[in-house]
Amino acid sequence: MNNNVFKKLSYGVYIVACEYNGKYTGCTVNSIMQITSDPAIIALSVNHENYTHVCIEETKKFSISILSEQSNPLAIGTFGFRSGRDCNKFDIIPYDIKNSLPVIKDACAYLICELKGKIDTHSHTVYIAEVIDGDVLNDIKPMTYEYYHNVIKGKSPKTAPTYIKE
Amino acid sequence: MNNNVFKKLSYGVYIVACEYNGKYTGCTVNSIMQITSDPAIIALSVNHENYTHVCIEETKKFSISILSEQSNPLAIGTFGFRSGRDCNKFDIIPYDIKNSLPVIKDACAYLICELKGKIDTHSHTVYIAEVIDGDVLNDIKPMTYEYYHNVIKGKSPKTAPTYIKE
Repeated sequence: MNNNVFKKLSYGVYIVACEYNGKYTGCTVNSIMQITSDPAIIALSVNHENYTHVCIEETKKFSISILSEQSNPLAIGTFGFRSGRDCNKFDIIPYDIKNSLPVIKDACAYLICELKGKIDTHSHTVYIAEVIDGDVLNDIKPMTYEYYHNVIKGKSPKTAPTYIKE
Repeated sequence: MNNNVFKKLSYGVYIVACEYNGKYTGCTVNSIMQITSDPAIIALSVNHENYTHVCIEETKKFSISILSEQSNPLAIGTFGFRSGRDCNKFDIIPYDIKNSLPVIKDACAYLICELKGKIDTHSHTVYIAEVIDGDVLNDIKPMTYEYYHNVIKGKSPKTAPTYIKE
C-alpha cells in the first residue's frame, strides 16, 4: 500500500471546543463530515489522547469553528500542538460565545453540536452529533487541509488521523 | 439555524464501488474521512436508498476512486443520479480492476476497503472500514466538493448527506 494515497482525501480545518469544569478548551481537527441533512447529523474523529476527548465525553456538547483561508494559523498550532490539560488555549486566541460555547472570532462559520452516539477504534473515537445551531460569519473561503499544508506550510500533530511519519 | 453553514464543510468527490452478483456497481459520495492511521481506518456515509448500500452490506468490500480536477464529470453524474438497480454504470465509464474491484480510470488515487463496523441513522449508514490497499495514480489535484459545485457547476443528488432543498 502507498501511504501517500491518504494525502489525496480532502478535508477542512476546524477547531472543536467545549466548556468543562468552568474552563473553555478545544483542539484542531480535520476529520468532520455531514451524515444526514434533516435532522443535520455530523461525524467527527477525535484522538483518545486529546483532552477534548474527555471533555466531549463528559459534557456531550461542543462547538465547531470552521476556519477560513484568512483565519490566523496561530489558532491551528495552539489548538493542534498544545494540550488543554496544561494551558488555557483560549487565553491567546480571540473568540466569541455562541450558545454558551467558544467560537474562534475569525472563523467563517460555526456549528453547535450535541453528542448522539460513537464508534471507538484503538486510537480515535468517531462521534455522531446533531447540529442544533450554526451560522455563517463571513464569505471568506473555508480553509482546506490541502491549503493548510501547501500554502500555509502547516504540519499535522501526531494525534491527527491523517498523521504520516516523515 | 442557518443551513448554509453546511456548505462551509470541505469534502472531496469519490466513487465507491462493489462487485455484487457478478456485476460492478457504485455511487458518488463526498462524506469520506480517515479515522486512524495505523492501521488505516476510514469512515464513509452512504444513503440507505442507494443500491451500493445493499452491496456493501452483502460483500463487505469496496473500492474508493478519488476523483481529480481533471476526472470526467460524467462519472459523477452517472454514479450520483442513476441507480445500479436499473443500469450498469460501469458500461459507460472507463475503469481498471484493482484487487478484483473496479476503479475509475481517470481517478488520481484509489483505496481498497474491508468493512469493520457501522453506525446507522434514519437515512444514512456510517461505515467504518480498514484500508487494505491503495495507490496514487497521478499527480493531478484531487477534486474538492467546492470545485465540483463552483467550477464544474455540479449539483447534489437528493440522497447526499449534504443535499439542501433549493
